[in-house]
Amino acid sequence: MDNIKNYIDKNKDRFIDELIELLKIPSVSADSAYSQDVINTADAVKSRLEKAGCDFVEICETPGYPIVYGEKTIDKNLPTILVYGHYDVQPADPVELWTSPPFEPVIKKTELHPDGAIFARGSCDDKGQMYMHVKALEYMVQSNSLPCNVKFMIEGEEEVGSPSLAWFVARNQEKLKNDVILISDTGMISNTQPSITTGLRGLSYVEVEVTGPNRDLHSGLYGGAVANPINILAKMIAQLHDDNNHITIPGFYDKVHDLSREERDEMAKAPFSLDAYKKALDIEDVYGEATYTTNERNSIRPTLDVNGIWGGYTGEGAKTVIASKAYAKISMRLVPDQDWNEITELFTKHFTAIAPKGVKVKVTPHHGGQAYVTPIDSIGYQAAALAYAESFGVKPIPVRSGGSIPIVALFEKELKSKTIMMGFGLDSDAIHSPNEHFGIFNYLKGIETIPYFYKYFTELSK
Amino acid sequence: MDNIKNYIDKNKDRFIDELIELLKIPSVSADSAYSQDVINTADAVKSRLEKAGCDFVEICETPGYPIVYGEKTIDKNLPTILVYGHYDVQPADPVELWTSPPFEPVIKKTELHPDGAIFARGSCDDKGQMYMHVKALEYMVQSNSLPCNVKFMIEGEEEVGSPSLAWFVARNQEKLKNDVILISDTGMISNTQPSITTGLRGLSYVEVEVTGPNRDLHSGLYGGAVANPINILAKMIAQLHDDNNHITIPGFYDKVHDLSREERDEMAKAPFSLDAYKKALDIEDVYGEATYTTNERNSIRPTLDVNGIWGGYTGEGAKTVIASKAYAKISMRLVPDQDWNEITELFTKHFTAIAPKGVKVKVTPHHGGQAYVTPIDSIGYQAAALAYAESFGVKPIPVRSGGSIPIVALFEKELKSKTIMMGFGLDSDAIHSPNEHFGIFNYLKGIETIPYFYKYFTELSK
Repeated sequence: MDNIKNYIDKNKDRFIDELIELLKIPSVSADSAYSQDVINTADAVKSRLEKAGCDFVEICETPGYPIVYGEKTIDKNLPTILVYGHYDVQPADPVELWTSPPFEPVIKKTELHPDGAIFARGSCDDKGQMYMHVKALEYMVQSNSLPCNVKFMIEGEEEVGSPSLAWFVARNQEKLKNDVILISDTGMISNTQPSITTGLRGLSYVEVEVTGPNRDLHSGLYGGAVANPINILAKMIAQLHDDNNHITIPGFYDKVHDLSREERDEMAKAPFSLDAYKKALDIEDVYGEATYTTNERNSIRPTLDVNGIWGGYTGEGAKTVIASKAYAKISMRLVPDQDWNEITELFTKHFTAIAPKGVKVKVTPHHGGQAYVTPIDSIGYQAAALAYAESFGVKPIPVRSGGSIPIVALFEKELKSKTIMMGFGLDSDAIHSPNEHFGIFNYLKGIETIPYFYKYFTELSK
Repeated sequence: MDNIKNYIDKNKDRFIDELIELLKIPSVSADSAYSQDVINTADAVKSRLEKAGCDFVEICETPGYPIVYGEKTIDKNLPTILVYGHYDVQPADPVELWTSPPFEPVIKKTELHPDGAIFARGSCDDKGQMYMHVKALEYMVQSNSLPCNVKFMIEGEEEVGSPSLAWFVARNQEKLKNDVILISDTGMISNTQPSITTGLRGLSYVEVEVTGPNRDLHSGLYGGAVANPINILAKMIAQLHDDNNHITIPGFYDKVHDLSREERDEMAKAPFSLDAYKKALDIEDVYGEATYTTNERNSIRPTLDVNGIWGGYTGEGAKTVIASKAYAKISMRLVPDQDWNEITELFTKHFTAIAPKGVKVKVTPHHGGQAYVTPIDSIGYQAAALAYAESFGVKPIPVRSGGSIPIVALFEKELKSKTIMMGFGLDSDAIHSPNEHFGIFNYLKGIETIPYFYKYFTELSK
């Protein structure tokens, strides 16, 4: 199967150019101003799948943005791999912190990416990683080496919580039937130490609104006499953690299972430098839940973070006002067995309960999803491990990620199949941040590794 | 002196039209987008003072917006009244909450203003109350009843803390020489119970910036492992008050003098209905420092309020991000003997001290001013009391206001004269809020009352 190396060598410039074209479309699903761009991206993905060799591709309408479905069936008796990815991207703001425009991709060398990396919103999350699968299919079709059937389901609402995906999956059980689901929307430890994500955190994302007086007030005439919604919101947010940074919502930890000392020791073997971590973020110290390490805090422990806050006068200069309302967007990362709907209810109940009499509180759930763990003894994991070992020459390490791909739990429930997360990005690729990028090495290595997964999964399924 | 009533009767439509013209200019000093409008307003005020009968008027340049100076001297041996006011206004936002455009004045009847009120930003604070003095002068000049000399100093930076006024006053001691300073930039209890503001709170206004990681981060990959600047800012703000809503800044209360039981009982006599207060603001309960009444909390007690807060993703939808920075605008209202510079330092020291290791904190002082108390045995206060009694037929009550006019303390220091605050607005006039308005009754009553002050002050000065 060395042909894959040669094929990539011959075609890499085109592979990169095709991805760059895709990255130029600002498919920001969170902002309705970009809705036409999101739809145009779906059309672009459809034609790429057709060119790559799918024998059937369609744009499937949903209550939200469309889902691109494609398939190539070579033999009904062979296993079927369902590839999931998303063509929508995170908002680019704060745009002023980008060193090059987020939707004008450029290739720049970095310390970790000496061969260069593509800088653009979505380059890694997830257009770049999704497109690796399209190019891997192209190779297998061109070289007549596709060993099994393949289906693609590429959605456009992942960055806003996939509101339409459950609706779509529930209505297309037969069409989506598969033996394993393959996703590249996670990262790996480094370009010399591949890893496979075996766990994902769940998510509950809410927006809160605190209302005090029925109008903005002069802070001199009313200051000190009425509940200031901003001060109250700050106080309520502060109360959500105790001095040990445990979350104080009653019942929040009821279903959280502590990992055994052995499991934690196993995790601790993954290469990690706290100094390098602090240096990379330019922070004097890390901060988190007492008695847990940094890697545990952001993977096996549930967390609560304010993702946005606003209220009162935020313009130039000074305004002595007491705002009528204050707002915050708050998300909680959850671990296996914490049900996101239940956690959302617990949050709502608690947050409303701790509000003083002088204010009214409104909690609006945005979206959420369940946590997930992949068994490493499954055929899918084994095939993925062999694939990485072959392309990287190094055995991959299983790791738990702090991120969430809510639909993974949904897939298992609705489609009864396991999901394998073959990620090729690096944590330093700045996904969801300014200057997101994806290494050329990683992009091409992904295209190289994926056909091996097809090969081994088909063999192990016999 | 009944002529004043007749004169107002004959000219009231013109008085109202002239004020409306002034209110149409959006002289927002806090937002540089309006700088030309601010300057145009200064020119308009200059020509109004000339028309009213000043024998000398000039636009005085400063490092910031110009100050309009005018004077009419009838006899060097007679007392001189210095009228201070400001022609700049607060920002109009949130504009969407205005029932009519903030800079398109309209007259509407309200429950408290059956004769109608002018709705426009600046109608009460302070264009309307400042212009009463211009029209009062016009009357006294027309009727040859001006009993003393008068000077006008109308500035354009009051709403941003009068940064240039100290500079101007220090350089114009002789020009501004006076026997009493008269300001209408406060309110009164009601249209049937006039009151005179004898105390003002000081102010310290700062902006804080909390920086965590050097870039926005994915809340899944980093959530729980690094200090989230928004959560930290919320926690720090919450720590600024204890459970009794006392401010926790070390040394903050050191120079605060508790009023005697007698003084507090005297204050408590001012008519006030807590139910009406709560109903007007649509709040279930008031909120503030333990052991003090609502009227005490917003007048004789120092307070701390967040006037604005922002950070992270505040757009449509959801973004799972940990922001690199979070910001807040915080103001403290101070009482006599609390030095605002010292308080600003205490705040900065404390706020920096309570920051956890994982973040960096920057505190930027915006502006401030000292508190002030007018002695009610002064000639100025006596003259004002007689003036109100004559025009309203009711003896005015002395009250302490929660608001701040930082320059009043400055005047006493630099010009060695007392300031009398003859306010004609009502707390319900919504200054600094959407739908600011000023009663026609109040506007005309102010024009009627001012000449009496000139008369009595001149007589009592003999």
